[in-house]
Amino acid sequence: MTVVIALDAMGGDHAPQIVLAGAELVLSEKRFTHTHNTQINFLLFGDDQLLTRLIKEFPLLKSHAQICHAEQAVTSTTKPSLALRQAAASGMGLAIKAVADGRASAVVSAGNTGAYMALSKMFLKTLDGVDRPAIAKIMPTRRGKSIVLDLGANAECNVSNLVQFGVMGSVLAEHSGLYEKGQKPTIGLLNIGSESSKGLPHLQETASILEKYVNFYGFVEGNDITAGTTDVVVTDGFSGNVALKAIEGTAHLIKHFLKEALARYLSGKIGYLIAQKSFAALAKRMDPRLYNGAILLGLRGIAVKSHGGTDAVGYAEAIKVALDLASNHHNPLEVGGELSFNRIIQERIAQLKTSA
Amino acid sequence: MTVVIALDAMGGDHAPQIVLAGAELVLSEKRFTHTHNTQINFLLFGDDQLLTRLIKEFPLLKSHAQICHAEQAVTSTTKPSLALRQAAASGMGLAIKAVADGRASAVVSAGNTGAYMALSKMFLKTLDGVDRPAIAKIMPTRRGKSIVLDLGANAECNVSNLVQFGVMGSVLAEHSGLYEKGQKPTIGLLNIGSESSKGLPHLQETASILEKYVNFYGFVEGNDITAGTTDVVVTDGFSGNVALKAIEGTAHLIKHFLKEALARYLSGKIGYLIAQKSFAALAKRMDPRLYNGAILLGLRGIAVKSHGGTDAVGYAEAIKVALDLASNHHNPLEVGGELSFNRIIQERIAQLKTSA
Repeated sequence: MTVVIALDAMGGDHAPQIVLAGAELVLSEKRFTHTHNTQINFLLFGDDQLLTRLIKEFPLLKSHAQICHAEQAVTSTTKPSLALRQAAASGMGLAIKAVADGRASAVVSAGNTGAYMALSKMFLKTLDGVDRPAIAKIMPTRRGKSIVLDLGANAECNVSNLVQFGVMGSVLAEHSGLYEKGQKPTIGLLNIGSESSKGLPHLQETASILEKYVNFYGFVEGNDITAGTTDVVVTDGFSGNVALKAIEGTAHLIKHFLKEALARYLSGKIGYLIAQKSFAALAKRMDPRLYNGAILLGLRGIAVKSHGGTDAVGYAEAIKVALDLASNHHNPLEVGGELSFNRIIQERIAQLKTSA
Repeated sequence: MTVVIALDAMGGDHAPQIVLAGAELVLSEKRFTHTHNTQINFLLFGDDQLLTRLIKEFPLLKSHAQICHAEQAVTSTTKPSLALRQAAASGMGLAIKAVADGRASAVVSAGNTGAYMALSKMFLKTLDGVDRPAIAKIMPTRRGKSIVLDLGANAECNVSNLVQFGVMGSVLAEHSGLYEKGQKPTIGLLNIGSESSKGLPHLQETASILEKYVNFYGFVEGNDITAGTTDVVVTDGFSGNVALKAIEGTAHLIKHFLKEALARYLSGKIGYLIAQKSFAALAKRMDPRLYNGAILLGLRGIAVKSHGGTDAVGYAEAIKVALDLASNHHNPLEVGGELSFNRIIQERIAQLKTSA
């Protein structure tokens, strides 16, 4: 099977270099392509002169990519409204359009999140019944991995939005390969205080609806995200974004504290040298690049958002998230035998609407 | 100088044992009492039979405490409404009342936060002009320490609430001993995206007002809390609570990852043994007990909230926060020469109202 991934080659702080290097990295990982038994091709959207010159340094990519010229680039400061006006001319817009047109199975961008979501809604359209797409991410926890959504697409959410996020998050978890087949992932709703009487009224109402449609655990608190109390944590984009960044910030802080503590005593420095293998394992487990790649969920196609400041290793992870979704659920809305997760999302959302 | 601290001896998961043990710990720390050049006395509110029996194990406390009987205890599940009805009979209510009556300079409780805030508002009253008290906490950062508020007292906040939190947080920072005298602490407003155009409309408005009244840095994001980007981080109680708990949860997660990584290889175990001093230093720096003690800010008196699940070491820290505030700002509203921080809060809030 051949999977085509469209890349917004100009999006992100260190584009296009890290985009190309990230794609090269994915192609070089035999393990990955073998598991999926898949031939990977890339469509690179951006300045063709620049990309044609740069791609010479990436031999694997050169033979697995097609460069598609785009006049403009969406920068980190481009407002979504401007991005929409320039949609058909920007690398980001054209990369998304390639998925809408069926030329690619998924799109990856490290560009401006607001513009990416706006352009994805415009070109891909939302799934039937989905009011607002959400940004979902797989995060490391004490128990393994959990999915958190929304992470910033919708700063304010009403009951219906949150219920839909719960349903979409559940379907994503069921199809993410994180859990055994047939297992019903547990869904938690982020609140302050886990007692059922606590928190804001609209969260009470969301909880009462969610328990009818998903394997609802109940309210969870900020610490439950990393504890892995539930397989999915549902929240509005403001709190989700704050939590995600607080978690990233704390990881940085503790890394800093650990370094300082080890550097403080000679015994610490010696112990560090001896335990290097353990510290390398810890560094790998805490490496935010290895969790890069958020999913724009609720769209008629697969769109993955890379962190804007990541490097080639991080960008490669975002491509792998797209590849995972695309090769498991190729052509999401027109799958033959097996239902794709997007079709299941539509069915579950339709059930919500019927009962409401 | 004698400082009297009222303790809700029955509040918290491990009360009254850890309350008594925590108070004993504070009394045993000569360094602390010497710095403040202060004689500390405690009023212990709770079941007098139980407390009379238990206090025998704490010789220092026994000679520095008075037991005051309370018929009832506010438990972790007591609703604030019930707590208010039983106010005059509960240890929590009576301990707060002791501050209102001038018998104590500050109160500490590890009990139910909602009930504690409700009873504090009832007995202590809010400061003139303050619409809603907030819960503030001093948190460790990469640069030192920062103050975050609100941490859960007000799940939803309007512009005026957030502006007041900014002003109160600034005054607390100026008087917390964290910064040099005369230094104007920087105030950040938590948002998603730090660009001034980002985030919710009411945060835009809050920012435009705050920059007139405090040393306003601008918007900050979740990772800026632990980075220590600003001296004070202002947010609503929902996001603040989520961030605080996400930070705590991440610290737990990484401790767990570190332990696993060291246990995984023999070299890790040996390195750990050699670097023990460094790991002890790290453990101390990450110990959440040493940051225990949140401040109920905006009240006519000093009320400190201990984490409900803490132990004696953590409870002692909460007492020290109360002691710090009480011995620096004794009798907050009737100070002679030097202005207390509560009086300054009132003045600054009045300025806000005049200009609005």
